[in-house]
Amino acid sequence: MRFATTILLSFGLLVPAAAQGQAGQSDPSAPVSGDLRAVSPALARHTEQTLLGEVWKRSDLAPRDRSIVTLSILIARGQTAELPLYLDRALDAGVKPAEISEMLTHLAFYAGWSSANVAAPHVKDAFARHGISPDQLPKAEPALLLLDEAREAARAKFVGDSFGTTSTGLVNDTTSFLFKDLWLRPDLAPRDRSLVTISSLIANGQAAQLTSHLALGMDNGLTRAEAGGIISHAAFYAGWPNAFSAMTVAKGVFEARAK
Amino acid sequence: MRFATTILLSFGLLVPAAAQGQAGQSDPSAPVSGDLRAVSPALARHTEQTLLGEVWKRSDLAPRDRSIVTLSILIARGQTAELPLYLDRALDAGVKPAEISEMLTHLAFYAGWSSANVAAPHVKDAFARHGISPDQLPKAEPALLLLDEAREAARAKFVGDSFGTTSTGLVNDTTSFLFKDLWLRPDLAPRDRSLVTISSLIANGQAAQLTSHLALGMDNGLTRAEAGGIISHAAFYAGWPNAFSAMTVAKGVFEARAK
Amino acid sequence: MRFATTILLSFGLLVPAAAQGQAGQSDPSAPVSGDLRAVSPALARHTEQTLLGEVWKRSDLAPRDRSIVTLSILIARGQTAELPLYLDRALDAGVKPAEISEMLTHLAFYAGWSSANVAAPHVKDAFARHGISPDQLPKAEPALLLLDEAREAARAKFVGDSFGTTSTGLVNDTTSFLFKDLWLRPDLAPRDRSLVTISSLIANGQAAQLTSHLALGMDNGLTRAEAGGIISHAAFYAGWPNAFSAMTVAKGVFEARAK
Repeated sequence: MRFATTILLSFGLLVPAAAQGQAGQSDPSAPVSGDLRAVSPALARHTEQTLLGEVWKRSDLAPRDRSIVTLSILIARGQTAELPLYLDRALDAGVKPAEISEMLTHLAFYAGWSSANVAAPHVKDAFARHGISPDQLPKAEPALLLLDEAREAARAKFVGDSFGTTSTGLVNDTTSFLFKDLWLRPDLAPRDRSLVTISSLIANGQAAQLTSHLALGMDNGLTRAEAGGIISHAAFYAGWPNAFSAMTVAKGVFEARAK
Repeated sequence: MRFATTILLSFGLLVPAAAQGQAGQSDPSAPVSGDLRAVSPALARHTEQTLLGEVWKRSDLAPRDRSIVTLSILIARGQTAELPLYLDRALDAGVKPAEISEMLTHLAFYAGWSSANVAAPHVKDAFARHGISPDQLPKAEPALLLLDEAREAARAKFVGDSFGTTSTGLVNDTTSFLFKDLWLRPDLAPRDRSLVTISSLIANGQAAQLTSHLALGMDNGLTRAEAGGIISHAAFYAGWPNAFSAMTVAKGVFEARAK
Repeated sequence: MRFATTILLSFGLLVPAAAQGQAGQSDPSAPVSGDLRAVSPALARHTEQTLLGEVWKRSDLAPRDRSIVTLSILIARGQTAELPLYLDRALDAGVKPAEISEMLTHLAFYAGWSSANVAAPHVKDAFARHGISPDQLPKAEPALLLLDEAREAARAKFVGDSFGTTSTGLVNDTTSFLFKDLWLRPDLAPRDRSLVTISSLIANGQAAQLTSHLALGMDNGLTRAEAGGIISHAAFYAGWPNAFSAMTVAKGVFEARAK
């Protein structure tokens, strides 16, 4: 028993109290927890040097966009442990509280209700830490952006012709809740909704939907370099295999648009 | 510090103590937590008005079936936060405790052991809230339903011929643990096991297995309208992309059976 | 209220305090929790008799390898509830602490950073229970294994030619962080890194990457019988559908290598 205590203490001693800005394991927004540092010095080093020290500083994607991609992946996968760290980073990098609020609603539709629900307490805590008041958040029913009627009519016709008799409910809901409501809410720009959607699709390995959403995202203003940057950034948070699958899809989309 | 407290309080004030039957964030079976209401009024509205107020009341799928689909998706994805709410709904909608117990076993095989394990404490708590006693639950080894020998022989031959030398273990286990045991346990009807299996496959984006299980489900009594209703219901809990992938598979199954 | 208490007690009475080595629900490393036993006697029986009593004792995969497969699946899926049980099993079965430490780093890259992060506290606790001191763990930057220059050059050329202009970041990171660093770290053998990678791919249904990693694993020393054994073992922890998808891929890999 005393031996076990000694071991625990010796693990504890591996944690420098305030090395490079990281606090011990009791600080939920430290980039590397004391536990991780104790059991995998290699992963602690990669987190600090490779991921935060190098990848986050690359120019192919803005820090603000990296924050949106990272939060979208974590929320879409239901991974809440690192939300305090990355919510603080996002707010510090200029992501607006209203945008984070919209991301929750957007991801509820694209990654499932529960993923958004379990993120909510962490968002609330981060807003409190940053002194954000409720009047900075979007209303439940704001005035919507103008609908591109022609484009939406074409989309609705294609989906309706393809699946109208398979699941009438889903076909109708897609029109009324997504394309005539969610995507038109003004507090998250269409380009950023694409960033969130693409990140969520990569996060959960949903390559089938990625083709059309990468194309929509580029129509909405994402550059080819940014799309490549999203994928290499996502590799760290969604795992290499999901990023590789996304890269295969992106190659096809880039080639089709180059013609 | 005092400022942060004020902010926290102001967020707290967004939570009406007993609006429309929702209590504050301390009630784990409230449809909308106080935290969610504080950070995303839009998602709170969609939860109450769109999802619970509209989708759950549609006639293409019975409330009891919606409960089974929802619980299956949450358990299959390892999402426990909303289990208290939906377990209570299920028991209120007529899903039997014995059926919920069987769902756990069924989902252990179809979504992995841990998914069922982490749901167990929530099921136990819900059973206690509803005064359900252990003798209402299925035994470990009940008398089984009668096996359709011809159908099972055809299935076993097909799988054995295809994969008998790839993974003998998996081929044999599929016969002995799934088709000669799990699917014959009497306290969850084959039609409902199909409902659970299909929901689990949609939940985790497993389109490859959905073709045969949609066909089996329709053989087991699911109607085409119900299959379409499962998919549109699942969109909210498993996310739109998983529902769209399922709709593509369902279209093919419906067309093949119409011939 | 008194009724509810009685019910709770009667559920509690279902839990034999020390049956077959299992303690009550307060022991986090018991194979079957009291809660599971209370709500699903069938699943409790399958856990003890089928899974631990039969599957784990089969000869197609060594107990040490079963431990690595199981831990990899749980970590890759972010499922921490059963980590105490299976970390203890792994250490008892001869998996070295240094190997477990390397698995965390490996899975961070292959299943996403957060999956490794949330496992870390459980690994730390298991190490403390087993009296493992920090000097038994790999350094952040050890001397690396010798690189197979020809093989790596071929791999890098293929990926670079295919995707060099799609996501330059991901292509470069794959070379520098995975194939010239992670895979060469000496405290987890290449054969075992394949075991971890294959398990992680099965765990998350990533069939697209499985073809090349099954082939690499067999080059690294995994036998065909072991590959089949991994898949049948994984069925229980990652669910039957993921195992069936893997079996389809494995069939193709086995046939291609038999030529």
